[in-house]
Amino acid sequence: MTTDTRPKHVAVRSANWSIGGVVKGVGMIHPNMATMLCFVTTDASVRQPFLQKALEAAVDDSFNMIDVDSDTSPDDIALVLANSLAGGEAIDEGHREAPAFAVALKQLCVYLAKAMIADAEGATKTIEAQVGGAASAEDARRAARAIISSLGVKTAVYGKDPNWGRVLSAIGNSGAEVQEERTKLFLATPDDGEICLFAGVPQGFDPAQAKACLESESIRFRIDLGLGEAAATAWGSDLTEDYVRLNSEYTT
Amino acid sequence: MTTDTRPKHVAVRSANWSIGGVVKGVGMIHPNMATMLCFVTTDASVRQPFLQKALEAAVDDSFNMIDVDSDTSPDDIALVLANSLAGGEAIDEGHREAPAFAVALKQLCVYLAKAMIADAEGATKTIEAQVGGAASAEDARRAARAIISSLGVKTAVYGKDPNWGRVLSAIGNSGAEVQEERTKLFLATPDDGEICLFAGVPQGFDPAQAKACLESESIRFRIDLGLGEAAATAWGSDLTEDYVRLNSEYTT
Repeated sequence: MTTDTRPKHVAVRSANWSIGGVVKGVGMIHPNMATMLCFVTTDASVRQPFLQKALEAAVDDSFNMIDVDSDTSPDDIALVLANSLAGGEAIDEGHREAPAFAVALKQLCVYLAKAMIADAEGATKTIEAQVGGAASAEDARRAARAIISSLGVKTAVYGKDPNWGRVLSAIGNSGAEVQEERTKLFLATPDDGEICLFAGVPQGFDPAQAKACLESESIRFRIDLGLGEAAATAWGSDLTEDYVRLNSEYTT
Repeated sequence: MTTDTRPKHVAVRSANWSIGGVVKGVGMIHPNMATMLCFVTTDASVRQPFLQKALEAAVDDSFNMIDVDSDTSPDDIALVLANSLAGGEAIDEGHREAPAFAVALKQLCVYLAKAMIADAEGATKTIEAQVGGAASAEDARRAARAIISSLGVKTAVYGKDPNWGRVLSAIGNSGAEVQEERTKLFLATPDDGEICLFAGVPQGFDPAQAKACLESESIRFRIDLGLGEAAATAWGSDLTEDYVRLNSEYTT
Protein backbone atom coordinates (compact mmCIF):
# COMPACT_ATOMS: atom_id res chain seq x y z
CA MET A 1 0.00 0.00 0.00
CA THR A 2 1.24 3.48 -0.77
CA THR A 3 -0.01 6.67 0.85
CA ASP A 4 1.76 8.99 -1.61
CA THR A 5 -1.02 11.15 -3.08
CA ARG A 6 0.83 12.64 -6.05
CA PRO A 7 3.95 12.38 -8.24
CA LYS A 8 6.99 14.24 -6.91
CA HIS A 9 9.59 15.08 -9.55
CA VAL A 10 11.64 17.97 -10.86
CA ALA A 11 14.34 18.78 -13.41
CA VAL A 12 17.14 21.35 -13.46
CA ARG A 13 18.74 22.43 -16.75
CA SER A 14 22.01 24.21 -17.40
CA ALA A 15 23.48 25.20 -20.78
CA ASN A 16 25.39 21.92 -20.99
CA TRP A 17 23.45 19.30 -19.03
CA SER A 18 20.22 18.46 -17.24
CA ILE A 19 19.44 16.70 -13.96
CA GLY A 20 16.07 15.13 -13.24
CA GLY A 21 14.81 13.47 -10.06
CA VAL A 22 11.80 11.63 -8.68
CA VAL A 23 10.97 10.56 -5.11
CA LYS A 24 8.48 8.35 -3.33
CA GLY A 25 7.82 8.39 0.41
CA VAL A 26 5.47 10.20 2.80
CA GLY A 27 5.66 8.30 6.10
CA MET A 28 8.21 6.66 8.41
CA ILE A 29 10.48 9.51 7.38
CA HIS A 30 13.24 10.73 9.67
CA PRO A 31 16.95 11.39 9.33
CA ASN A 32 18.77 9.57 8.08
CA MET A 33 16.47 9.09 5.06
CA ALA A 34 14.23 6.11 5.81
CA THR A 35 11.33 4.65 3.86
CA MET A 36 11.91 6.71 0.76
CA LEU A 37 13.16 6.18 -2.75
CA CYS A 38 14.97 8.84 -4.78
CA PHE A 39 16.17 8.33 -8.35
CA VAL A 40 18.15 11.05 -10.07
CA THR A 41 19.33 10.93 -13.67
CA THR A 42 21.63 13.27 -15.55
CA ASP A 43 23.04 13.43 -19.04
CA ALA A 44 26.12 15.19 -17.69
CA SER A 45 29.51 13.58 -18.07
CA VAL A 46 30.62 13.28 -14.41
CA ARG A 47 33.43 11.37 -12.76
CA GLN A 48 32.07 8.84 -10.26
CA PRO A 49 33.99 9.96 -7.12
CA PHE A 50 32.90 13.58 -7.61
CA LEU A 51 29.32 12.49 -8.29
CA GLN A 52 29.28 10.39 -5.11
CA LYS A 53 30.62 13.28 -3.04
CA ALA A 54 28.14 15.75 -4.55
CA LEU A 55 25.27 13.32 -3.88
CA GLU A 56 26.29 12.80 -0.25
CA ALA A 57 26.48 16.55 0.33
CA ALA A 58 23.09 17.04 -1.35
CA VAL A 59 21.43 14.26 0.66
CA ASP A 60 22.88 15.60 3.93
CA ASP A 61 21.16 18.95 3.43
CA SER A 62 17.90 17.57 2.05
CA PHE A 63 16.67 14.01 2.78
CA ASN A 64 18.66 13.92 6.02
CA MET A 65 16.96 17.12 7.21
CA ILE A 66 13.32 16.11 6.98
CA ASP A 67 10.92 14.44 9.36
CA VAL A 68 7.38 13.14 9.15
CA ASP A 69 7.10 10.92 12.22
CA SER A 70 10.51 10.16 13.78
CA ASP A 71 10.26 6.63 12.41
CA THR A 72 12.58 4.96 9.96
CA SER A 73 12.81 1.68 8.12
CA PRO A 74 15.45 -0.33 6.26
CA ASP A 75 13.92 0.60 2.92
CA ASP A 76 15.65 3.67 1.55
CA ILE A 77 17.78 4.69 -1.37
CA ALA A 78 19.02 7.78 -3.20
CA LEU A 79 20.66 6.98 -6.49
CA VAL A 80 22.18 9.06 -9.30
CA LEU A 81 22.63 7.65 -12.78
CA ALA A 82 24.81 9.62 -15.23
CA ASN A 83 25.00 8.55 -18.88
CA SER A 84 27.41 11.24 -20.24
CA LEU A 85 25.19 11.88 -23.30
CA ALA A 86 25.76 15.65 -22.89
CA GLY A 87 29.39 14.99 -23.79
CA GLY A 88 32.30 17.31 -23.10
CA GLU A 89 35.10 16.92 -20.62
CA ALA A 90 33.99 14.88 -17.58
CA ILE A 91 33.12 17.04 -14.57
CA ASP A 92 35.45 16.34 -11.68
CA GLU A 93 36.64 18.17 -8.56
CA GLY A 94 38.16 21.43 -9.80
CA HIS A 95 36.30 21.41 -13.16
CA ARG A 96 34.80 24.86 -13.86
CA GLU A 97 31.28 23.36 -13.88
CA ALA A 98 31.75 21.36 -10.67
CA PRO A 99 30.30 24.01 -8.30
CA ALA A 100 27.26 24.62 -10.53
CA PHE A 101 26.60 20.88 -10.83
CA ALA A 102 26.88 20.34 -7.07
CA VAL A 103 24.56 23.29 -6.36
CA ALA A 104 22.02 22.10 -8.93
CA LEU A 105 22.01 18.59 -7.48
CA LYS A 106 21.51 19.96 -3.95
CA GLN A 107 18.70 22.30 -5.05
CA LEU A 108 17.01 19.39 -6.78
CA CYS A 109 17.26 17.19 -3.66
CA VAL A 110 15.98 19.98 -1.39
CA TYR A 111 13.03 20.52 -3.74
CA LEU A 112 12.21 16.80 -3.68
CA ALA A 113 12.66 16.55 0.10
CA LYS A 114 10.23 19.44 0.61
CA ALA A 115 7.82 17.84 -1.88
CA MET A 116 7.81 14.68 0.27
CA ILE A 117 7.05 16.74 3.38
CA ALA A 118 4.28 18.63 1.58
CA ASP A 119 2.73 15.26 0.69
CA ALA A 120 3.40 13.72 4.14
CA GLU A 121 0.73 11.43 5.55
CA GLY A 122 -2.17 13.53 6.81
CA ALA A 123 -0.16 16.75 6.70
CA THR A 124 -1.70 20.18 6.18
CA LYS A 125 1.47 22.26 6.56
CA THR A 126 5.23 22.27 5.98
CA ILE A 127 7.32 23.53 8.89
CA GLU A 128 10.72 25.00 8.04
CA ALA A 129 13.24 25.53 10.84
CA GLN A 130 16.17 27.79 9.96
CA VAL A 131 18.76 27.68 12.70
CA GLY A 132 21.66 30.16 12.67
CA GLY A 133 24.23 31.41 15.14
CA ALA A 134 25.04 27.86 16.28
CA ALA A 135 28.36 26.98 17.89
CA SER A 136 28.94 24.18 15.35
CA ALA A 137 27.41 22.79 12.18
CA GLU A 138 26.35 19.65 14.06
CA ASP A 139 24.61 21.80 16.70
CA ALA A 140 22.75 23.72 14.00
CA ARG A 141 21.60 20.48 12.37
CA ARG A 142 20.55 18.97 15.70
CA ALA A 143 18.54 22.00 16.74
CA ALA A 144 16.82 22.34 13.35
CA ARG A 145 15.93 18.64 13.23
CA ALA A 146 14.69 18.63 16.84
CA ILE A 147 12.21 21.42 16.08
CA ILE A 148 10.67 19.82 13.02
CA SER A 149 10.60 16.36 14.69
CA SER A 150 8.80 17.51 17.85
CA LEU A 151 5.20 16.33 18.19
CA GLY A 152 4.55 19.37 20.39
CA VAL A 153 5.66 21.69 17.59
CA LYS A 154 3.87 19.62 14.93
CA THR A 155 0.54 19.67 16.77
CA ALA A 156 0.87 23.36 17.74
CA VAL A 157 1.46 24.32 14.10
CA TYR A 158 -1.49 22.18 13.03
CA GLY A 159 -3.58 24.07 15.61
CA LYS A 160 -2.19 27.45 14.43
CA ASP A 161 -0.83 28.08 17.90
CA PRO A 162 2.36 30.27 18.01
CA ASN A 163 3.67 28.12 20.87
CA TRP A 164 7.23 29.40 21.23
CA GLY A 165 7.68 27.33 24.41
CA ARG A 166 7.47 24.08 22.49
CA VAL A 167 10.02 25.29 19.91
CA LEU A 168 12.43 26.26 22.69
CA SER A 169 11.86 22.96 24.52
CA ALA A 170 12.72 21.08 21.33
CA ILE A 171 15.95 23.06 20.92
CA GLY A 172 16.79 22.52 24.59
CA ASN A 173 16.26 18.79 24.17
CA SER A 174 18.34 18.58 20.97
CA GLY A 175 21.73 18.29 22.60
CA ALA A 176 22.89 21.49 20.88
CA GLU A 177 24.62 24.14 22.98
CA VAL A 178 21.98 26.72 23.89
CA GLN A 179 22.02 29.78 26.11
CA GLU A 180 18.47 30.88 26.74
CA GLU A 181 19.40 34.56 27.18
CA ARG A 182 21.07 34.62 23.75
CA THR A 183 18.38 32.69 21.89
CA LYS A 184 16.02 34.48 19.52
CA LEU A 185 13.00 32.96 17.81
CA PHE A 186 11.17 34.49 14.85
CA LEU A 187 8.05 33.45 12.95
CA ALA A 188 7.86 34.36 9.25
CA THR A 189 4.93 36.47 8.10
CA PRO A 190 3.19 35.89 4.72
CA ASP A 191 4.81 39.08 3.33
CA ASP A 192 8.33 37.73 4.04
CA GLY A 193 8.67 39.74 7.23
CA GLU A 194 9.12 38.27 10.71
CA ILE A 195 7.56 38.45 14.17
CA CYS A 196 9.93 38.05 17.11
CA LEU A 197 8.40 35.59 19.59
CA PHE A 198 11.35 35.25 21.97
CA ALA A 199 14.60 37.12 22.52
CA GLY A 200 16.11 35.91 25.77
CA VAL A 201 12.66 36.39 27.26
CA PRO A 202 9.18 36.06 25.74
CA GLN A 203 8.34 39.02 23.49
CA GLY A 204 5.06 40.84 23.30
CA PHE A 205 3.44 40.10 19.94
CA ASP A 206 -0.01 40.39 18.45
CA PRO A 207 -1.61 36.92 18.82
CA ALA A 208 -3.94 37.61 15.89
CA GLN A 209 -0.98 38.48 13.65
CA ALA A 210 0.90 35.34 14.77
CA LYS A 211 -2.15 33.19 14.15
CA ALA A 212 -2.47 34.75 10.68
CA CYS A 213 1.12 33.63 9.93
CA LEU A 214 0.10 30.11 10.88
CA GLU A 215 -2.78 30.08 8.38
CA SER A 216 -0.21 29.56 5.63
CA GLU A 217 0.66 26.09 4.29
CA SER A 218 4.36 26.93 4.71
CA ILE A 219 5.40 27.88 8.22
CA ARG A 220 8.92 29.13 8.87
CA PHE A 221 10.64 29.52 12.22
CA ARG A 222 14.04 31.23 12.30
CA ILE A 223 16.21 30.70 15.34
CA ASP A 224 19.35 32.65 16.17
CA LEU A 225 21.30 30.82 18.87
CA GLY A 226 23.69 33.79 19.19
CA LEU A 227 26.71 31.57 19.82
CA GLY A 228 28.55 31.23 16.50
CA GLU A 229 28.31 31.20 12.73
CA ALA A 230 26.96 27.75 11.89
CA ALA A 231 23.56 27.34 10.24
CA ALA A 232 21.22 24.57 9.04
CA THR A 233 17.68 24.21 7.77
CA ALA A 234 15.24 21.34 8.30
CA TRP A 235 11.69 20.65 7.15
CA GLY A 236 8.88 18.71 8.81
CA SER A 237 5.18 18.11 8.42
CA ASP A 238 2.54 18.90 11.01
CA LEU A 239 0.78 16.08 12.90
CA THR A 240 -2.93 15.66 12.31
CA GLU A 241 -5.79 13.32 13.09
CA ASP A 242 -5.47 12.11 9.49
CA TYR A 243 -1.91 10.90 10.16
CA VAL A 244 -3.23 8.78 13.02
CA ARG A 245 -6.12 7.50 10.92
CA LEU A 246 -3.87 6.57 7.98
CA ASN A 247 -1.39 4.74 10.18
CA SER A 248 -3.83 2.96 12.44
CA GLU A 249 -5.95 1.72 9.53
CA TYR A 250 -2.90 0.54 7.59
CA THR A 251 -2.87 -3.18 7.07
CA THR A 252 0.13 -5.26 6.09
CA MET B 1 -3.94 23.95 31.76
CA THR B 2 -3.62 20.32 32.82
CA THR B 3 -4.67 17.33 30.76
CA ASP B 4 -4.31 14.82 33.61
CA THR B 5 -7.74 13.20 33.92
CA ARG B 6 -7.35 11.51 37.31
CA PRO B 7 -5.23 11.31 40.48
CA LYS B 8 -2.26 8.93 40.25
CA HIS B 9 -0.95 7.77 43.63
CA VAL B 10 -0.01 4.61 45.50
CA ALA B 11 1.43 3.44 48.83
CA VAL B 12 3.57 0.45 49.80
CA ARG B 13 3.68 -0.79 53.40
CA SER B 14 6.20 -3.05 55.13
CA ALA B 15 6.18 -4.16 58.77
CA ASN B 16 8.36 -1.23 59.76
CA TRP B 17 7.71 1.62 57.33
CA SER B 18 5.54 2.92 54.52
CA ILE B 19 6.27 4.69 51.23
CA GLY B 20 3.68 6.78 49.40
CA GLY B 21 3.93 8.51 46.04
CA VAL B 22 1.97 10.78 43.74
CA VAL B 23 2.66 11.87 40.15
CA LYS B 24 1.36 14.39 37.65
CA GLY B 25 2.08 14.37 33.93
CA VAL B 26 0.49 12.91 30.79
CA GLY B 27 2.14 14.65 27.83
CA MET B 28 5.58 15.79 26.64
CA ILE B 29 6.85 12.64 28.33
CA HIS B 30 9.99 10.92 27.11
CA PRO B 31 13.16 9.65 28.76
CA ASN B 32 14.69 11.21 30.63
CA MET B 33 11.60 12.14 32.66
CA ALA B 34 10.28 15.44 31.25
CA THR B 35 7.15 17.39 32.07
CA MET B 36 6.24 15.34 35.12
CA LEU B 37 6.22 15.77 38.86
CA CYS B 38 6.73 12.91 41.31
CA PHE B 39 6.64 13.32 45.09
CA VAL B 40 7.39 10.35 47.31
CA THR B 41 7.21 10.39 51.11
CA THR B 42 8.27 7.77 53.60
CA ASP B 43 8.29 7.47 57.39
CA ALA B 44 11.33 5.20 57.16
CA SER B 45 14.56 6.25 58.77
CA VAL B 46 16.94 6.25 55.77
CA ARG B 47 20.44 7.63 55.29
CA GLN B 48 20.48 10.27 52.55
CA PRO B 49 23.19 8.78 50.28
CA PHE B 50 21.43 5.40 50.23
CA LEU B 51 18.07 7.07 49.61
CA GLN B 52 19.50 9.07 46.70
CA LYS B 53 21.01 5.94 45.16
CA ALA B 54 17.80 3.94 45.60
CA LEU B 55 15.79 6.78 44.02
CA GLU B 56 18.11 7.02 41.02
CA ALA B 57 17.89 3.27 40.41
CA ALA B 58 14.10 3.38 40.75
CA VAL B 59 13.73 6.34 38.37
CA ASP B 60 16.01 4.70 35.81
CA ASP B 61 13.71 1.69 35.54
CA SER B 62 10.44 3.62 35.70
CA PHE B 63 10.15 7.29 34.69
CA ASN B 64 13.16 6.99 32.39
CA MET B 65 11.51 4.07 30.57
CA ILE B 66 8.23 5.66 29.50
CA ASP B 67 7.15 7.65 26.48
CA VAL B 68 4.04 9.51 25.45
CA ASP B 69 5.23 11.64 22.56
CA SER B 70 9.04 11.80 22.34
CA ASP B 71 8.89 15.38 23.64
CA THR B 72 10.42 16.72 26.80
CA SER B 73 10.51 19.99 28.71
CA PRO B 74 12.63 21.58 31.44
CA ASP B 75 9.87 20.99 34.00
CA ASP B 76 10.47 17.72 35.81
CA ILE B 77 11.21 16.45 39.26
CA ALA B 78 11.21 13.25 41.31
CA LEU B 79 11.66 13.88 45.02
CA VAL B 80 11.70 11.63 48.10
CA LEU B 81 11.10 13.06 51.56
CA ALA B 82 11.90 10.82 54.56
CA ASN B 83 10.94 11.95 58.09
CA SER B 84 12.23 8.95 60.12
CA LEU B 85 9.01 8.76 62.19
CA ALA B 86 9.06 4.97 61.88
CA GLY B 87 12.17 5.05 64.07
CA GLY B 88 14.71 2.27 64.33
CA GLU B 89 18.25 2.11 63.06
CA ALA B 90 18.65 4.22 59.90
CA ILE B 91 18.59 2.14 56.70
CA ASP B 92 21.88 2.38 54.86
CA GLU B 93 23.81 0.30 52.31
CA GLY B 94 24.24 -3.14 53.93
CA HIS B 95 21.31 -2.72 56.37
CA ARG B 96 19.13 -5.85 56.39
CA GLU B 97 16.14 -3.81 55.18
CA ALA B 98 18.04 -2.02 52.41
CA PRO B 99 17.12 -4.45 49.60
CA ALA B 100 13.42 -4.50 50.59
CA PHE B 101 13.32 -0.70 50.74
CA ALA B 102 15.00 -0.32 47.35
CA VAL B 103 12.66 -2.86 45.75
CA ALA B 104 9.58 -1.21 47.29
CA LEU B 105 10.68 2.21 46.05
CA LYS B 106 11.25 0.84 42.54
CA GLN B 107 7.89 -0.98 42.48
CA LEU B 108 6.18 2.23 43.57
CA CYS B 109 7.88 4.25 40.82
CA VAL B 110 7.07 1.65 38.16
CA TYR B 111 3.43 1.66 39.27
CA LEU B 112 3.30 5.46 39.05
CA ALA B 113 5.10 5.54 35.67
CA LYS B 114 2.58 3.06 34.26
CA ALA B 115 -0.27 5.12 35.75
CA MET B 116 1.01 8.17 33.85
CA ILE B 117 1.09 6.17 30.60
CA ALA B 118 -2.41 4.80 31.23
CA ASP B 119 -3.61 8.42 31.61
CA ALA B 120 -1.51 9.72 28.69
CA GLU B 121 -3.08 12.36 26.48
CA GLY B 122 -5.65 10.75 24.21
CA ALA B 123 -4.35 7.24 24.93
CA THR B 124 -6.50 4.12 24.76
CA LYS B 125 -3.80 1.53 25.45
CA THR B 126 -0.55 0.94 27.35
CA ILE B 127 2.20 -0.74 25.33
CA GLU B 128 4.80 -2.71 27.30
CA ALA B 129 8.04 -3.73 25.57
CA GLN B 130 10.04 -6.41 27.37
CA VAL B 131 13.42 -6.80 25.74
CA GLY B 132 15.67 -9.72 26.72
CA GLY B 133 18.72 -11.43 25.31
CA ALA B 134 20.45 -8.11 24.64
CA ALA B 135 24.22 -7.83 24.35
CA SER B 136 24.29 -5.07 27.02
CA ALA B 137 21.96 -3.36 29.49
CA GLU B 138 22.16 -0.16 27.45
CA ASP B 139 21.18 -2.07 24.30
CA ALA B 140 18.18 -3.58 26.09
CA ARG B 141 17.07 -0.14 27.30
CA ARG B 142 17.54 1.42 23.87
CA ALA B 143 15.57 -1.28 22.08
CA ALA B 144 12.72 -1.23 24.62
CA ARG B 145 12.46 2.56 24.53
CA ALA B 146 12.61 2.67 20.73
CA ILE B 147 9.61 0.35 20.45
CA ILE B 148 7.36 2.27 22.81
CA SER B 149 8.46 5.64 21.33
CA SER B 150 7.76 4.71 17.70
CA LEU B 151 4.76 6.45 16.13
CA GLY B 152 4.46 3.51 13.76
CA VAL B 153 4.09 1.11 16.68
CA LYS B 154 1.81 3.51 18.59
CA THR B 155 -0.60 3.95 15.68
CA ALA B 156 -0.52 0.24 14.78
CA VAL B 157 -1.45 -0.70 18.36
CA TYR B 158 -4.21 1.92 18.36
CA GLY B 159 -5.52 0.33 15.15
CA LYS B 160 -5.19 -3.19 16.64
CA ASP B 161 -2.80 -4.15 13.86
CA PRO B 162 -0.19 -6.82 14.82
CA ASN B 163 2.38 -5.00 12.70
CA TRP B 164 5.59 -6.86 13.60
CA GLY B 165 7.47 -4.98 10.85
CA ARG B 166 7.11 -1.68 12.68
CA VAL B 167 8.33 -3.21 15.96
CA LEU B 168 11.39 -4.65 14.20
CA SER B 169 12.05 -1.34 12.40
CA ALA B 170 12.01 0.46 15.75
CA ILE B 171 14.50 -2.00 17.21
CA GLY B 172 16.68 -1.72 14.12
CA ASN B 173 16.67 2.05 14.44
CA SER B 174 17.44 2.01 18.17
CA GLY B 175 21.21 1.69 17.87
CA ALA B 176 21.13 -1.60 19.79
CA GLU B 177 23.04 -4.55 18.37
CA VAL B 178 20.53 -6.69 16.48
CA GLN B 179 20.87 -9.78 14.32
CA GLU B 180 17.66 -10.30 12.41
CA GLU B 181 18.06 -14.08 12.22
CA ARG B 182 18.36 -14.33 16.01
CA THR B 183 15.53 -11.95 16.86
CA LYS B 184 12.24 -13.25 18.17
CA LEU B 185 9.09 -11.19 18.74
CA PHE B 186 6.12 -12.34 20.80
CA LEU B 187 2.72 -10.75 21.48
CA ALA B 188 1.07 -11.51 24.83
CA THR B 189 -2.39 -13.09 24.79
CA PRO B 190 -5.10 -12.15 27.33
CA ASP B 191 -4.61 -15.53 29.12
CA ASP B 192 -0.90 -14.77 29.75
CA GLY B 193 0.23 -16.89 26.82
CA GLU B 194 2.13 -15.61 23.79
CA ILE B 195 1.89 -15.63 20.00
CA CYS B 196 5.20 -15.70 18.12
CA LEU B 197 5.07 -13.10 15.33
CA PHE B 198 8.69 -13.31 14.18
CA ALA B 199 11.57 -15.71 14.76
CA GLY B 200 14.33 -14.84 12.31
CA VAL B 201 11.61 -14.81 9.67
CA PRO B 202 7.92 -13.85 9.84
CA GLN B 203 5.87 -16.57 11.55
CA GLY B 204 2.50 -17.82 10.49
CA PHE B 205 -0.07 -16.75 13.06
CA ASP B 206 -3.83 -16.43 13.21
CA PRO B 207 -4.60 -12.75 12.42
CA ALA B 208 -7.90 -12.98 14.30
CA GLN B 209 -6.13 -14.25 17.43
CA ALA B 210 -3.49 -11.49 17.15
CA LYS B 211 -6.18 -8.86 16.71
CA ALA B 212 -7.96 -10.24 19.78
CA CYS B 213 -4.75 -9.71 21.81
CA LEU B 214 -4.78 -6.08 20.68
CA GLU B 215 -8.32 -5.53 21.98
CA SER B 216 -6.86 -5.34 25.49
CA GLU B 217 -5.98 -2.04 27.16
CA SER B 218 -2.56 -3.48 28.07
CA ILE B 219 -0.50 -4.70 25.13
CA ARG B 220 2.76 -6.53 25.75
CA PHE B 221 5.48 -7.28 23.22
CA ARG B 222 8.35 -9.53 24.29
CA ILE B 223 11.54 -9.44 22.26
CA ASP B 224 14.40 -11.89 22.54
CA LEU B 225 17.46 -10.48 20.78
CA GLY B 226 19.28 -13.80 21.25
CA LEU B 227 22.65 -12.15 21.81
CA GLY B 228 23.21 -12.01 25.57
CA GLU B 229 21.66 -11.83 29.00
CA ALA B 230 20.66 -8.17 29.42
CA ALA B 231 17.00 -7.17 29.76
CA ALA B 232 14.88 -4.03 30.13
CA THR B 233 11.22 -3.05 30.06
CA ALA B 234 9.63 0.16 28.80
CA TRP B 235 6.06 1.46 28.63
CA GLY B 236 4.41 3.78 26.14
CA SER B 237 0.94 4.98 25.20
CA ASP B 238 -0.68 4.56 21.80
CA LEU B 239 -1.16 7.57 19.50
CA THR B 240 -4.72 8.60 18.73
CA GLU B 241 -6.70 11.36 17.03
CA ASP B 242 -7.49 12.61 20.55
CA TYR B 243 -3.77 13.21 21.26
CA VAL B 244 -3.62 15.41 18.16
CA ARG B 245 -6.82 17.22 19.13
CA LEU B 246 -5.67 17.86 22.71
CA ASN B 247 -2.29 19.19 21.61
CA SER B 248 -3.44 21.27 18.68
CA GLU B 249 -6.23 22.94 20.67
CA TYR B 250 -3.91 23.65 23.61
CA THR B 251 -3.47 27.35 24.22
CA THR B 252 -0.71 28.91 26.27
